[in-house]
Amino acid sequence: MCSQILYDVVVIGAGYCGLTAARNAAIEGLKVLLLEGRDRVGGRSWSSNIGGYPFEMGGTWVHWGQANTWREILRYQMEKDLEMSFDFSKGVNHFELGSMQGSVTMSHKEEDELLASALKKFTNVDGVYGRKTIPLPHVTFRNPASISLDSQSAQDRINEIATTLSPQERTVLEASILLASGGTLETTSFHEFMHWWAMCGYTYAGWLDMLITWKFRDGQSTFARKFFDEALATKRLCYSFNTPVSHIHDTGSSVNVTTRNGQTYRALRVVSAMPLNVLGNVTFDPPLSPGKQAAIATGHVNQTAKVHAEISNPDLRSWTGINYPHNQLNYAIGDGTTPAGNTHIVCFGGQHNHLDPEADIETTKRAVTSLFHPAHYNGKHVEIERLVFHNWSEDEFAKGAWFFPPPGLVSRHLSDMRERHGNVLFANSDWALGWRSFIDGAIEEGTRVGLQVRREIVELQDTTRSNL
Amino acid sequence: MCSQILYDVVVIGAGYCGLTAARNAAIEGLKVLLLEGRDRVGGRSWSSNIGGYPFEMGGTWVHWGQANTWREILRYQMEKDLEMSFDFSKGVNHFELGSMQGSVTMSHKEEDELLASALKKFTNVDGVYGRKTIPLPHVTFRNPASISLDSQSAQDRINEIATTLSPQERTVLEASILLASGGTLETTSFHEFMHWWAMCGYTYAGWLDMLITWKFRDGQSTFARKFFDEALATKRLCYSFNTPVSHIHDTGSSVNVTTRNGQTYRALRVVSAMPLNVLGNVTFDPPLSPGKQAAIATGHVNQTAKVHAEISNPDLRSWTGINYPHNQLNYAIGDGTTPAGNTHIVCFGGQHNHLDPEADIETTKRAVTSLFHPAHYNGKHVEIERLVFHNWSEDEFAKGAWFFPPPGLVSRHLSDMRERHGNVLFANSDWALGWRSFIDGAIEEGTRVGLQVRREIVELQDTTRSNL
Repeated sequence: MCSQILYDVVVIGAGYCGLTAARNAAIEGLKVLLLEGRDRVGGRSWSSNIGGYPFEMGGTWVHWGQANTWREILRYQMEKDLEMSFDFSKGVNHFELGSMQGSVTMSHKEEDELLASALKKFTNVDGVYGRKTIPLPHVTFRNPASISLDSQSAQDRINEIATTLSPQERTVLEASILLASGGTLETTSFHEFMHWWAMCGYTYAGWLDMLITWKFRDGQSTFARKFFDEALATKRLCYSFNTPVSHIHDTGSSVNVTTRNGQTYRALRVVSAMPLNVLGNVTFDPPLSPGKQAAIATGHVNQTAKVHAEISNPDLRSWTGINYPHNQLNYAIGDGTTPAGNTHIVCFGGQHNHLDPEADIETTKRAVTSLFHPAHYNGKHVEIERLVFHNWSEDEFAKGAWFFPPPGLVSRHLSDMRERHGNVLFANSDWALGWRSFIDGAIEEGTRVGLQVRREIVELQDTTRSNL
Repeated sequence: MCSQILYDVVVIGAGYCGLTAARNAAIEGLKVLLLEGRDRVGGRSWSSNIGGYPFEMGGTWVHWGQANTWREILRYQMEKDLEMSFDFSKGVNHFELGSMQGSVTMSHKEEDELLASALKKFTNVDGVYGRKTIPLPHVTFRNPASISLDSQSAQDRINEIATTLSPQERTVLEASILLASGGTLETTSFHEFMHWWAMCGYTYAGWLDMLITWKFRDGQSTFARKFFDEALATKRLCYSFNTPVSHIHDTGSSVNVTTRNGQTYRALRVVSAMPLNVLGNVTFDPPLSPGKQAAIATGHVNQTAKVHAEISNPDLRSWTGINYPHNQLNYAIGDGTTPAGNTHIVCFGGQHNHLDPEADIETTKRAVTSLFHPAHYNGKHVEIERLVFHNWSEDEFAKGAWFFPPPGLVSRHLSDMRERHGNVLFANSDWALGWRSFIDGAIEEGTRVGLQVRREIVELQDTTRSNL
């Protein structure tokens, strides 16, 4: 059936959003074609198995507070396949803070208190840490008082509270903000940060729990493949990898999707599940609305560099660290023990002090080793056994990491980004209502448009039947 | 098609669990019959519209931390239809605590501090408020240290910490526990309470947010009807209300479901979505496993009495109260303002000091008015304009409110309750893994068995085809 000339729906992009839309449409009876530019599913989430150990190149952590993701984890009965990133049961068991004031270590309890104190000051716009201002984060700007937060950058907000912050608080606060946004303090929307904070339950404990605690023991890709396999089992899904789309033409009654290699596919509906930063790769006829074009021209600001390092010292399993503002990797945690017995450290940098990890391996190694001051390890430098990374900024199908908006983008263009364009529906985590930027937001969006497409196709079928 | 002789699946029970299973099966192409003993959908959740105001007779509150519920709210784009139960913006704006020490009022901030302090002492079994003991609540007894909590009752745990509690802390703690369980302190499993606590993020703020904050402006039933309407639109759903099932006979190749009025329906699979406490109403051939029978014989302990009162004083909108242990309604909050301008108060009692609200209306009225000590209201008694309630304990299709287990039931029989019985699959919030007892758990369970049934039916169809 994959050669058929008219699909019910063509889904462009096999990240979680496209996978969800394609899967739901297929299990609900539609004929689906899934086109993907890469040679794999998962989009900006992908685990690379090296030596029997899954390194997470992109989206990693999940939590039961993330509705769409968790619904799928339970549905696939994968809740037992999760493990914690942190293990503070043995080894050095400390937090290392490198800053302009030098390098110190402290207990994880002290780390938590320091971060909680800093984040509480940053988020306390209303005396109740944002609860009044963003009472129900899925309804964007439900409280009109929240709109002005989107004209502020993180830097603007820091300026407001600067006198209340200790030097250590300021260091960990700025590093935490940049860990979320992957931009600079000036290009980070304060509202979006507050939206994350609200989603996490307005507490630092929730922040840690939801953002960086639970991951799949065998890698995030095991989860993505469940969606794909379920869709395939319906026998109503066709797919083509290595098939970037270049042009989309909506004739009014159907849509022609032309790939970069010149093939054209036809469907009653198209789901564009491409991220904001790559939508400009595709031309549309008729052209997109001015609002959508403006959103694409603005783009998001997240240029996170995520670097995995295998380090020979097993005691560092219980290490966490921040080194800011001069290091190119600002935030890192001990994330696992590899089969070789080495500690796996995952490190994050962003647009601030940007690092292209592949550009100069010695520079990248130095950015990792600089997280560990020899004074705390008997005068020894850490030894790197392996580096693993994927440069999402240079990836033509990503052009950045997870979505993070500059000030103004969400207040000006959230509805533009979400808007359909004739028979083309736009779905992506980048404009989800809840866990925007997360795997969860991708599934939220794939669910939304999947349902919409089914309703429309069923209506078309009913109309056709009643015309016979 | 509703007269067809062999369905793919018969779903028994049109609460959220049965609705979800039936809806998913129908939209995924199966032929479904939904049988319901009542004259409505929603099960133990149901809003009664009186004078244009929805009184929630059963399950009410939802939150974005509840995965399955929230996924559906977003899917049906109902996030804008929610409102907060609390409104502390005007009126008396206090918490009233009636106890053996008399009656006092305090600010809501003091209320929160008192409750948080008491709950922290109760839940702090490991120095981190249960995080270590129940690190991932969906994986029951993941940490073996949690098993022993299920042999403790709430009373046992209170005995352990009694010397650390102030009299006020003890009062609000006991009332809070009974608000959750609807049993007595002796019949309340401490583990189940800790499971709730973990689901709420191990904090009192999360507890309030998740359990009692957001509800549907137009009533919970508007949500349930979305499931039903979507299933109906497929034209693959047949249904019959007022049709209690009395007997289920699994022949091996199909299942015969006999109703109380003597009709028999046949299906390849049956989903039993009845609550634990009513499963004993149905006979099974072959008989259920000893484990399942033991679970049914034990039953759950929740005999919550939920009573709505319309009270003429609009200033009480911002009132909350506990009156324990002598009042028959222990916990209440201002929950809305009715079209008549009266304050709507929702009040809870349970097995402790049990009240059958319809038995003697004067007694019920007194249980409401006793929540308000005249000393705090210029010497006046509150005036009740209307009482609204449904006695779930006397309801033959509920025999109690939401599931709450006595000590031992979950550790002994959770897997028994979840186990299938030949071609009959058992799904109910009562044995969900996550938000067990909640609407969310019902959707979790309906989703689980819905997927399982589809897989099996598709496999049967494939086998049939390959045999042709």
